[in-house]
This record gives sequence, structure tokens and C-alpha cells, in this order.
Amino acid sequence: MRVFNFSAGPAALPESVLAQAAAEMLDWHGTGMSVMEMSHRGKEFMGIQAKVEADLRTLLAIPEDYSVLFLQGGAIAENALVPMNMLGRRTIADYVNTGEWSKKSIREARKYCTVKIVASSEDTNFTSIPALGTWQLDRNAAYVHICTNETIGGIEYQWTPETGEVPLVADMSSHILSRVIDVAKYGVIYAGAQKNAGTAGLTLVIVRNDLLDRALPITPSAFHWQEQAAADSMVNTPPTYAIYIAGLVFEWLLAQGGVAAIEKKNIAKAALLYDYLDTTQFYRAPARKMDRSRMNVRFHLQDESLDSAFLRGAKEAGMDQLKGHRAVGGMRASIYNAMPFEGVRTLVAYMKQFEQQYG
Amino acid sequence: MRVFNFSAGPAALPESVLAQAAAEMLDWHGTGMSVMEMSHRGKEFMGIQAKVEADLRTLLAIPEDYSVLFLQGGAIAENALVPMNMLGRRTIADYVNTGEWSKKSIREARKYCTVKIVASSEDTNFTSIPALGTWQLDRNAAYVHICTNETIGGIEYQWTPETGEVPLVADMSSHILSRVIDVAKYGVIYAGAQKNAGTAGLTLVIVRNDLLDRALPITPSAFHWQEQAAADSMVNTPPTYAIYIAGLVFEWLLAQGGVAAIEKKNIAKAALLYDYLDTTQFYRAPARKMDRSRMNVRFHLQDESLDSAFLRGAKEAGMDQLKGHRAVGGMRASIYNAMPFEGVRTLVAYMKQFEQQYG
Repeated sequence: MRVFNFSAGPAALPESVLAQAAAEMLDWHGTGMSVMEMSHRGKEFMGIQAKVEADLRTLLAIPEDYSVLFLQGGAIAENALVPMNMLGRRTIADYVNTGEWSKKSIREARKYCTVKIVASSEDTNFTSIPALGTWQLDRNAAYVHICTNETIGGIEYQWTPETGEVPLVADMSSHILSRVIDVAKYGVIYAGAQKNAGTAGLTLVIVRNDLLDRALPITPSAFHWQEQAAADSMVNTPPTYAIYIAGLVFEWLLAQGGVAAIEKKNIAKAALLYDYLDTTQFYRAPARKMDRSRMNVRFHLQDESLDSAFLRGAKEAGMDQLKGHRAVGGMRASIYNAMPFEGVRTLVAYMKQFEQQYG
Repeated sequence: MRVFNFSAGPAALPESVLAQAAAEMLDWHGTGMSVMEMSHRGKEFMGIQAKVEADLRTLLAIPEDYSVLFLQGGAIAENALVPMNMLGRRTIADYVNTGEWSKKSIREARKYCTVKIVASSEDTNFTSIPALGTWQLDRNAAYVHICTNETIGGIEYQWTPETGEVPLVADMSSHILSRVIDVAKYGVIYAGAQKNAGTAGLTLVIVRNDLLDRALPITPSAFHWQEQAAADSMVNTPPTYAIYIAGLVFEWLLAQGGVAAIEKKNIAKAALLYDYLDTTQFYRAPARKMDRSRMNVRFHLQDESLDSAFLRGAKEAGMDQLKGHRAVGGMRASIYNAMPFEGVRTLVAYMKQFEQQYG
């Protein structure tokens, strides 16, 4: 029996995607081979990858002057590869610090440049996004880096910063494809695939073409955006199976009505949880209301001694991976695109019942 | 119907591995979730990864003072990451040039250090491995780099170089797990998984622990061997599904009797092809006999105008991806571990019949 899987990532996938992958495992479309077994340079896989890119372009309305790259290493790798690919002759980069993922990006960037923390929500324990008016932007920065959804703090940008001439670079790993975005407002968007775009081992990089000329000479070819853009992401063997799975997820998403349609569902799912959290004293949700993440709903039992009973009961009721990140404790319900409404309804019903039992 | 897939990589996988992956796709061992959906830090996936590492250690008899890392980016990424992780305070690295993959490694290493080409088989068009006695090794080199199997030229080291105090670093992407090796003779072994260890998107790095202290400050954390060794390869989210598939391949290999047993089969498969090639004037096999690759059997029709008829007939007979690499043309039969003896027998029978028809 399938469980409701609230993992922060790798995370739940649509059951129909898994079923199709299983059905095609030994013989993809009559080729007599698995996608795993295909040469990345053969016409079958080249066709798969072209379709995956086209579908992603449709889903996010990516303008033509942006390249889409299929890389490896996840967002943690991009934390180094962003400065390597973006610094050019500049030596300063602006970073907004909104939590654990921002901090990782900042630590890594310091290997390559002077990092300016232009805004931080550390004073609120990373329960909020700093207002744009408070950002101390540097006109000489190579770029401004933000993490648009912090899975650990459970906060999310509900707006897009304007950074003028300085390109905006966003780590969207944990909410890409969950809401409509205006790609044209970003210089670079990157995301590990393992939340809303399939399985771990694939990194999506969407980069405006005029930014492809500023890589440092130390940039490895496998991660050199300009070289990868020129080679259709085949400077190295791309993560072929992960790209195929991303493609199945994109087809599923298109069948759901696309990103605007899934965003409505995501709003409804998050509202169901937050609305209940707003009515109870038994649980608390630390994130500031206007900055609450739709993807990662962080909440705590006021009485932490009940945490393990809560998790045990949830597991018995078919809900898994609700434990919060060790950095902040408590609970976290990650409700990415593939989490059905029924999963959130089951969770809220369980939370109410648990409150009645122990409250 | 499954075909005999002679792709150089990504390449054929054992059918039983694919069948098991398909069967477990929606529910791994009663967890109610796919391996793709598991948190990498959950006990289920941690258990999977520990088993994969243990099986690899068994298969290759990896000594305890070596770390096994599960990284991303393939050998092309390691071409940059080897110097980053290995140079320390040294500025010179020795490289042996045996073909296209060596040349890629050399080009990339030049971004980070002075590369000395200590031996080359360019004068034989990369149809041979230079004898150790001719290597002009530098005692001050940070390491000596070799590619132990060149898929394009179809040549393979049948011996292990002795490099004294200077650590030997080997790109074994295309023949790892196909033959018994003495890991203790190497400082570092690395390999993309997509030939004999599963699917593209996973890189295996086996490194002697005393070499973990020499990374350059510019090394990205996601590819920093020392940090990854300390974190069980979880500095970033590892390519979880590719690790799982590698594990299924390793279990299959153990059931075959391990590396020594598969090596015997690989010798027999290669002999069947080369023995025939030695008797015919219709085809030619450029590689020097003593350096012939057991994994990638390169051959040419003397009359190249018959190439497309040969490939068309092969495909009709259920054999796919026999076309040689565009750099050298002709044909290439990649016969990795998962290629059954029957596949090679079918190929040789077809080659004989084609010779009779057109010879």
C-alpha cells in the first residue's frame, strides 16, 4: 500500500509517473531497451531530452533567450558553480540570508568572491523574508542571490525582487514548478529536481544567454554553463534516466493543467493546513504569515514531549516523513505538487484527532 | 522484444536488474514508496546505500584504508576534480595519453596545473598502450593519471603501472568491475557508473584516505572528496536512484560469482570476437593485440561503403548501437558485463554471414 509521503526531498512522485516508468522499464516504446540503456547520443534519447526541454519551456513560459541546462550535483554544487559561472571580472556578489539554504550558498560563494549579505532574517530566526526596501544592494555586485523557498524555516518569497541591472540568481529547488513565475525577471534560476521535477541527481539551470560569457577559467567543463548550453548539456553524459523521469513529471503536470492550475491546488492544500494551525493552541507555526511556504509547512507541538507519539501515530495512519529538520526540530509537512489534496486532508484530520486525544 | 545492445555507454543492463527495479518501483520492500521518493537521510535509503558500498567493497576487495564516494558529474567532471582534490601544494601532474578520454582529462587538468605528458601512443593512432619503460615520470608530480580502458580506440591496460611514491590515479569508467584489480596499487580510482555499474548520473570514486588532505581551496563542497568521505557522500543529496540501481547490478554480479567469474566470461566473449577477426580479411581490428580492450571491440569493414548495409542488417537481426565513434568511424561492439555470451555469438554469426554475402 502506498503511503502519504511528506518528505522534504527526495519527495513523493505522482503514482502515474511511477507506474509508467515501471511499465516502460524493460522496453521503451518498442526499442527493446530501457531508457537507462540508451546512448545519450542516440536518436531515441536525444528525442526524449528535447521533449523534456520543450515541456519545461511550456510549463514555465521560458523566453527564447534563455538556455535550459540539465546538469548534476544539485543546488549544493550550484552554490559553487554560480560564482564560477557568474563572476567574470567582478569580485563581489550580493546574498540575501533567509535560512539554512542561504547560509550554505553564502559559505560556498566565499571560496570565490567577497560576499555581501545585503539582507538577513536571522533576527527573526529565519521565520520571515526581509522586505526589499531594507536590502543594501551593491551596484558593483556580479549578481544578487536569493533562495526563494527555505525548506527548513518553511518560508517562501511571495514576490519577485527587482534588482535593476544586477542579475538576480535564484535557488528555486524546493518550489520550482509549484507556482507561476516570470522567468524574465531572473538572470539565473537553478533547482535540484528532487522535489517537483523528479528524482535526485538532476539539476535544472535556466540562464539568460547574455550571462553565458562570464565564467572563471577554473570552471570545470562539466559545469560550465556556456559550454553546456552549446552542447545541449552533453559535454558529459547527462543523467539520462533522471531526465526521463523529469519528463514524465512534466507530462503529468501539463495534464493537470500546467503550473497555474497546480498553483491553485497548492494554495488550497497549504490553506487547509495553515487555516487549522491558525485556530489551534496545541500546535504553533513559526513562519510569519505573509512569508509562509506553500511547500513546506513547519509546525511544532507546543508540548514537544508528544513529538514521538505524534510521529508514531501518523506512521500508523499511513503518513510518513513528517519529522522536522534536525536544525529546528518539530514537524514539517512537505506538500509538493505530487502530494494529493487527500494527503493533506488526512494529515489535518489526524492532527485534530491527536489534539483531541492529548490536548 | 529485448535487443542485444552494444552501446558504449550508457549501456545494456542485466534484464533481471531491470525487472526487479520495475517490480519495486511503486513500493520498495513494503515501505509504500519508491526508492526515488525516499529521503536520502531516512533509514531505508541509508540502509540501501550502506549495502551498495559493502557490496562494492566485496566485489573489488577494497582495502579498509580507502573511502568509497558516490558523487555526480561522471568522469568528465572528475577530470577537473582530480587536480582540484589532488594537487595540494604541487603544481605538476603526470598524464599518459592513450586516446580521446586521456586527451579530455589532459585538457581539463591544464586549467589547474602544469600537465606533463609522460607517455603517449598518439604515434600509433592510439592503437596501443605505451610500455612502462618509456614513461618519463616526474618525481615531483602530484599524481600520475591514466585511463585504463579507452572506449574509442578500443585499447585497455592488461597490467598495472608501478609509479612508486607518486599516487596513481585511474579513470576506470569503461572497465571497472569487469576484471580483478589490485586496488592497493592505486591512489584513486574513479568511474562513471553507466557501463558496468548501472545508470548515468553516478560517479564512483575510490580514494586512499591519506590522499584526502590535499584539496585546493577552490574545490566545491559537493565534489570535495574529504568532505564527502566524512559525510558518507551526503554533503549534497546523492543520486539516490542511480545508487539503488548500482546496488542491484552489484547483487547480480555477486550472484554471477563476483568479478573473477565475470572476468572469465568477459575473456571468453572478447576471444570469440577477436579470434574471428584474426581469421578474416573482410574486417580489420586496429588495436595492437596485447592491448586489445575486452570491453570495446573496435573493427572496420575493409570496404567502408558497406558500413550502412552492415548496420542495417544488424539492426534487423536484433543488434543495436554497433556504429563506431564518430572520431574513428567503423564499428564498435561494446560487450560489458551485462552483454550475454549469446549476444556476442549472434554478432559473430552475423559478421560471418555478412562476409559470405558481400566478401
